[in-house]
Amino acid sequence: MSEFTPVPNILAERYASTQMRGIWAFEKKIRRERLLWLCILKAQRELGLNIPEASEAAFEAKVDEIDLGSIAKREARTRHDLKARIEEFCELAGYQHIHLGLTSRDITENVEQAQMRDALLLLRGKAAAVLACLCSKAQQYSSLVMAGRTHNVVAQVTTLGKRFATCGEELMVAMEASDALLGRMRLRGLKGPVGTQQDLFQLFNGDYEKVKQLEMRVAQHLGFEGVQTSSAQVYPRSFDLECVSALLKLVAGPASLALTFRLMAGEGHFFEGFEEGQVGSSAMPHKNNPRLCERIAGLKTILVGHLAMASELTGAQWNEGDISCSVVRRVMLPDACFATDAVLDNFLAVLEGLEISEESLGAEVRDWMIALSSTKVLSMAVALGLGREEAHKVISRHILDSDEATFSFTSIARFARDLGSDKAFPLNETQVLSLFEDEIRPSGAATHQVKAFLEQADVWIKRFPEARKYAPKNPI
Amino acid sequence: MSEFTPVPNILAERYASTQMRGIWAFEKKIRRERLLWLCILKAQRELGLNIPEASEAAFEAKVDEIDLGSIAKREARTRHDLKARIEEFCELAGYQHIHLGLTSRDITENVEQAQMRDALLLLRGKAAAVLACLCSKAQQYSSLVMAGRTHNVVAQVTTLGKRFATCGEELMVAMEASDALLGRMRLRGLKGPVGTQQDLFQLFNGDYEKVKQLEMRVAQHLGFEGVQTSSAQVYPRSFDLECVSALLKLVAGPASLALTFRLMAGEGHFFEGFEEGQVGSSAMPHKNNPRLCERIAGLKTILVGHLAMASELTGAQWNEGDISCSVVRRVMLPDACFATDAVLDNFLAVLEGLEISEESLGAEVRDWMIALSSTKVLSMAVALGLGREEAHKVISRHILDSDEATFSFTSIARFARDLGSDKAFPLNETQVLSLFEDEIRPSGAATHQVKAFLEQADVWIKRFPEARKYAPKNPI
Amino acid sequence: MSEFTPVPNILAERYASTQMRGIWAFEKKIRRERLLWLCILKAQRELGLNIPEASEAAFEAKVDEIDLGSIAKREARTRHDLKARIEEFCELAGYQHIHLGLTSRDITENVEQAQMRDALLLLRGKAAAVLACLCSKAQQYSSLVMAGRTHNVVAQVTTLGKRFATCGEELMVAMEASDALLGRMRLRGLKGPVGTQQDLFQLFNGDYEKVKQLEMRVAQHLGFEGVQTSSAQVYPRSFDLECVSALLKLVAGPASLALTFRLMAGEGHFFEGFEEGQVGSSAMPHKNNPRLCERIAGLKTILVGHLAMASELTGAQWNEGDISCSVVRRVMLPDACFATDAVLDNFLAVLEGLEISEESLGAEVRDWMIALSSTKVLSMAVALGLGREEAHKVISRHILDSDEATFSFTSIARFARDLGSDKAFPLNETQVLSLFEDEIRPSGAATHQVKAFLEQADVWIKRFPEARKYAPKNPI
Amino acid sequence: MSEFTPVPNILAERYASTQMRGIWAFEKKIRRERLLWLCILKAQRELGLNIPEASEAAFEAKVDEIDLGSIAKREARTRHDLKARIEEFCELAGYQHIHLGLTSRDITENVEQAQMRDALLLLRGKAAAVLACLCSKAQQYSSLVMAGRTHNVVAQVTTLGKRFATCGEELMVAMEASDALLGRMRLRGLKGPVGTQQDLFQLFNGDYEKVKQLEMRVAQHLGFEGVQTSSAQVYPRSFDLECVSALLKLVAGPASLALTFRLMAGEGHFFEGFEEGQVGSSAMPHKNNPRLCERIAGLKTILVGHLAMASELTGAQWNEGDISCSVVRRVMLPDACFATDAVLDNFLAVLEGLEISEESLGAEVRDWMIALSSTKVLSMAVALGLGREEAHKVISRHILDSDEATFSFTSIARFARDLGSDKAFPLNETQVLSLFEDEIRPSGAATHQVKAFLEQADVWIKRFPEARKYAPKNPI
Repeated sequence: MSEFTPVPNILAERYASTQMRGIWAFEKKIRRERLLWLCILKAQRELGLNIPEASEAAFEAKVDEIDLGSIAKREARTRHDLKARIEEFCELAGYQHIHLGLTSRDITENVEQAQMRDALLLLRGKAAAVLACLCSKAQQYSSLVMAGRTHNVVAQVTTLGKRFATCGEELMVAMEASDALLGRMRLRGLKGPVGTQQDLFQLFNGDYEKVKQLEMRVAQHLGFEGVQTSSAQVYPRSFDLECVSALLKLVAGPASLALTFRLMAGEGHFFEGFEEGQVGSSAMPHKNNPRLCERIAGLKTILVGHLAMASELTGAQWNEGDISCSVVRRVMLPDACFATDAVLDNFLAVLEGLEISEESLGAEVRDWMIALSSTKVLSMAVALGLGREEAHKVISRHILDSDEATFSFTSIARFARDLGSDKAFPLNETQVLSLFEDEIRPSGAATHQVKAFLEQADVWIKRFPEARKYAPKNPI
Repeated sequence: MSEFTPVPNILAERYASTQMRGIWAFEKKIRRERLLWLCILKAQRELGLNIPEASEAAFEAKVDEIDLGSIAKREARTRHDLKARIEEFCELAGYQHIHLGLTSRDITENVEQAQMRDALLLLRGKAAAVLACLCSKAQQYSSLVMAGRTHNVVAQVTTLGKRFATCGEELMVAMEASDALLGRMRLRGLKGPVGTQQDLFQLFNGDYEKVKQLEMRVAQHLGFEGVQTSSAQVYPRSFDLECVSALLKLVAGPASLALTFRLMAGEGHFFEGFEEGQVGSSAMPHKNNPRLCERIAGLKTILVGHLAMASELTGAQWNEGDISCSVVRRVMLPDACFATDAVLDNFLAVLEGLEISEESLGAEVRDWMIALSSTKVLSMAVALGLGREEAHKVISRHILDSDEATFSFTSIARFARDLGSDKAFPLNETQVLSLFEDEIRPSGAATHQVKAFLEQADVWIKRFPEARKYAPKNPI
Repeated sequence: MSEFTPVPNILAERYASTQMRGIWAFEKKIRRERLLWLCILKAQRELGLNIPEASEAAFEAKVDEIDLGSIAKREARTRHDLKARIEEFCELAGYQHIHLGLTSRDITENVEQAQMRDALLLLRGKAAAVLACLCSKAQQYSSLVMAGRTHNVVAQVTTLGKRFATCGEELMVAMEASDALLGRMRLRGLKGPVGTQQDLFQLFNGDYEKVKQLEMRVAQHLGFEGVQTSSAQVYPRSFDLECVSALLKLVAGPASLALTFRLMAGEGHFFEGFEEGQVGSSAMPHKNNPRLCERIAGLKTILVGHLAMASELTGAQWNEGDISCSVVRRVMLPDACFATDAVLDNFLAVLEGLEISEESLGAEVRDWMIALSSTKVLSMAVALGLGREEAHKVISRHILDSDEATFSFTSIARFARDLGSDKAFPLNETQVLSLFEDEIRPSGAATHQVKAFLEQADVWIKRFPEARKYAPKNPI
Repeated sequence: MSEFTPVPNILAERYASTQMRGIWAFEKKIRRERLLWLCILKAQRELGLNIPEASEAAFEAKVDEIDLGSIAKREARTRHDLKARIEEFCELAGYQHIHLGLTSRDITENVEQAQMRDALLLLRGKAAAVLACLCSKAQQYSSLVMAGRTHNVVAQVTTLGKRFATCGEELMVAMEASDALLGRMRLRGLKGPVGTQQDLFQLFNGDYEKVKQLEMRVAQHLGFEGVQTSSAQVYPRSFDLECVSALLKLVAGPASLALTFRLMAGEGHFFEGFEEGQVGSSAMPHKNNPRLCERIAGLKTILVGHLAMASELTGAQWNEGDISCSVVRRVMLPDACFATDAVLDNFLAVLEGLEISEESLGAEVRDWMIALSSTKVLSMAVALGLGREEAHKVISRHILDSDEATFSFTSIARFARDLGSDKAFPLNETQVLSLFEDEIRPSGAATHQVKAFLEQADVWIKRFPEARKYAPKNPI
């Protein structure tokens, strides 16, 4: 190991924010554990256990004295990570009154749930910041007409603003889901090795009320409103599934829009923007690659891997619990949070730095005008009484260039002439032509929808006023 | 194809219930589509579109005239499944006034959301039936003491009733999540090819209110409370992720308990029960295999596969939508519902048919008494003032049989003698021995927890009174 | 169930070929089982077991008398699928001499391996057909210059032929892997309930050689070269993982190129082609959507789900085997084969029907000439002795239009003028300009590579001469 | 960041070996890149490019002068990791003659393939060590009779040695697959930005032979036998899928046996062994938990997540390549190797430290004797001419205790009496009884199979003679 530096967690160190790293940092976890032990010790003493008053201050004084090396040495001997941390803390304090009536999971499960809760709260705030930014872009481009695509083929016009609104609406649904999850979270509590609370029950002489009071103290300490009733050694792992899938949902809208940006970049509609000194490629200096958008796609794939891990753990807990998930959760829980955190931060950077080429978007609409306008012709014919399926058939007869061997559209002029003179069609040449000149409402209700979206989003943004101000550290 | 019968959907035909098959059956889907077209036609006429009154009755009369062969023939020509069904319905009715201002996804997406909603409602009811059954088992076995296990190694006693309660609590959390999802569902609505509602907007001369009224009519018709604001060609695929992950969560508790039953079957504690005429194995007639429990595990694995599919679709929708998901959703959405349906039905059959060997459970507790009681000794020592970590160390010195080369426990008698005479320990031999004789509260708060669980579950069971009565068709 | 037709397996009935359906059809499976029993019966008699000669003909006569209804009735009673089929066959034949010394898995595992082997052989042939088609396209378009893209942004020119070659090379690697897998396959053989061959061993009075001879007969009958040595109740499930991942690999190249086609369709470079009577969209009749390419993407996602199932089964077999995989394998094995089969057939249809717009490709190259040529300028400067990193910096100084607020290239003329007059650069204006006029070798070694690819592919195509002639039924 | 230490890669730092960390350590990667640049520079000079001879020594002298801080600073400016490393190396050397005619991926892709190759080679050696250890256990326990289980229910006897052989056989199949993969690996080579080798082609004045010679030099330098023909910007990502699935296969056998050990631990048959000072549980000091076996299960689940990531990348590369996979591969490739490495090391530790309780295994066989012997009775009856299905039925009539309400076996004595006196059965009471007394060949061909396995494994072990000596650092 002396030959090289430790292998860092790439997601944490290269992509995630300091806040998120802080939630999962090892020292912070140890500190949380110690504060939890302290909370329990105080409560146990108040509830009548025989614990010397002085021990409280003795433990409290040592909470921040965290010596990772010493703990590692203990673990190498005990082969039990928490036992090592118990011994370390007891020795520092000179008392052995923590962990009374408890098993390891009474500490670790609760701390991990608290970490996950903090991560979800942080991400909810960031999602609100993303939403605020999407709103401002939706508004800015509310009426910027562009070619909408289905099957990646131009179909009807839409507005760029609507694309931001669509992303924002998907994000809001994910935020609702996260919110509901946060509201539903119940702490595992102090349940003992097999969930029966046997040792606490014995220490309190079978007084179940005291056991419950102790648990509620722990819940309040960690910011939870309730505890689970009948969990066993561990909380059900479907909770992890729920958390990781909530994270993937938060990422969904941004990832889809980032993918769209990558397509738009390919057509010269979109640029991610260059920082001073930035280099596009080691071969082509000018390349303006949508690298943050690509990164978002990659981070989403990583989350898919984490969800696969959570899925395998779900419904696979035997007896009072299955600790084979231990190593999985050490990797999956923090990494899924780091990845989500990075997606939101990178997406914010994209939104803030993006450039749109209105010229390029406009040229595309003009190039594909005949394709983009066909449903207007169809709708007009239907309004004039022609059967819909009939109109569909007649239009398809004239819109393609039958002189060409390959697929290609005819010209607008020829289309108008041919369709206008088709007996089966109710519009004449001039009427058909006028539909192409009509610039009114080409994008339908797009701007109405954007407006409605902005109103819905406003509720979230008002709820998280600081969101508007959040600016992530510039991603590398 | 003449050489063999069509390949059936195994999940539907072999494992799922008639109700669930009904939700996804092709005829039923076509019927739903036609009713939706009819609802839209009526509303469009009332909102002022130029639609002959007689067309309504003409379409209505043909709703149930479903000729799959004729539709298939049309599709073979058009290579467009919905266009084939439009043509068929129009020709049957003799009018072309359905599908005005619409695109295919205005029909298919909404119908699919309605199918999924119905499936979730059906499964919620079944989950309530499972919960009711778990409650009755939890109550029945509330005080049946057995060896609890951590790391699959006996740890402390628990009660069998608590195991049912633990499963039930996980299930309730999943039901809460499903319920929240059902409450959050918003229909895609009628958004047109790229989501701008351009054609409806044009047909209604730019009157957005009329477009919204039309959409609300559709939502009510399909049982939804609201529609999405700014979806594009398709609803966001993170909605599918949310549905499939909700299904996996419903399966989690049952799958974990079914796994535990398989372990218990291996020890002779549990039997799945034999039906008249049933055969255990083609080689060993008597084998009482936990086959339904195994099937539950397998069905869960299948759901994991579906969630992998949904994950890949999530965050990967470009532009106004990406129809590459079409074939995936044809497979994943019904199959995930069939699998979940089968898990719940099979689990109910397991719960109703199971046999427990109290004799075998009791023997196990007796065999492992010393291991199961060690924390009682620890807790007593701590209560008498010995340092917890100190007590931990002293007990570990005496509990294993140091004469043996391999790992093995000493006898209770010798443990009591050796520990009782250890100066570092506050109890004497008699006191230690008495802890093993004490039958009071060996399973801690297990029965209290079961009681609390029953109270919580009662809310759900009261909400779905028919749940108690549901009995699935006996699974093969 | 009377209200609707059985739910079909969509992958089999809508997308897969008759050949592949035949491999997995239930009747065919039953037939294979009966032939396997017959093979074993004959061999056992020859090896000395007390089996009446007449039983052979009696069983043989009934092989094709397959009554699915009767078998289903038996299974409903026995709750054991294979026991039902044993009873049916015995009753038909009037003898009970099949299945001697066997357990169910001695039949089912081997038949399933044989089905998978046949499926892999079928797919290898189809892959060769795809490869042949890719070769012909690679040759046809070997020198058709187009804009190559990295990060989806135009980078350097390439040729369309090279894109086909790249796909073909990835496919060949997958074919090599499939081939190696086929060569490595060993049949589970007749191992009995826990793998010890106890009952056969007993029937043959402990003569292990006879047991081995019997197994080799079975292997030959099913087309395998060897049997496993120490498998237990089932063959290791990592074999299923290997098969499903081999299928996904076969799909990889086609799926990537199909994705590229979808992008090219969006730019008007590529069209999938219309059949007579085909309809683009229910709203836009002319839409030429890359629907088969999209389907390929979707089928690939389904395979990813199957691989997730196989992954969960891998490394999770306990004791002598874990039959919880039964329902998974009933779904996953055939469905993964159907999906792969459909990908190859659909991809062939795409290759055969595609249209390329050379005009559109050419226009793109002209539009992006400055970007596409920057590395030529860089390489020339380096060849003239300028430091590479220095050249990189100087070019990046002049290639973008600094007058524009947004990202945009300058004109070639201005670039040549500015760069040519930059003291730090070794070329003058005329020399820079000439690099843009030089049409020699703009696509580097692309045509050389295509040629080399064609030579490598030829080995495969010669090995499967029928491949050139394979034409799938036109997909819907 | 000052508040806490960097977040380490848990898999690397907590579980993987120093050798594996070395393969992926950042410094080592930079060193490899520099050596590759140097190799290319030398070859380019020899092939005629205008490169000063002195530059070679200048670069060579600086290969090991790796300043991570300086590189990080450059990257923060360029936002391009490889460009930063190019600049750093050039500045150290005082020349700019590396990376001529190259793009970033010409360096990174090749280095990553070399890292993966080294990792597979390391793991192949470790797998051989595991195999050697399995052989020695298979031999040691070749004849130790124990209850074999199907559906986790006792079925027939087997031997413990056979369980090791079964695991070993699955491992050998995985080793064959890895081996074949290593033999099939071809380096991406120097293909330039879009794969056409345009810049090298230009530098060598269109001399394709020189380009190929340069590539072969690179292949040899990195230990590969060939290069790909027509890859584009990147090598096909199905290669990553192939690597990760090869890793999962290596893990399959060990993971299954580790799972079996966890079940055996639950019955007191197996113990993982205690190290001096080790602590079982923070509550129960004596708990002998199969923690390394559990860890193996968890690491396998992590690999499943990585395979999900690789699956999503497969078949999703558009145009000349899609760099959105960049962040995925930074995580997935090393982490999948770390996880596999840890599985093999931990499994070796399990094999070396395990304890088996022969007493406990023997007791189980005695307790379940009637169930374990039923097929012997069946086979004997069949050998005496009774129809197999008939015998099956008669045995099932008598083996269960019909006096009991619940499922339970009758006694051997009563079974012998009842079956012996059943007219339909050809054996009398004494003959039935004698079958239970007969200790001959109870485990069938198990020992023969073990012997055959040892012979097959010997080929691998002889090929990797150092394997026998490999002993991993004791895992925590």
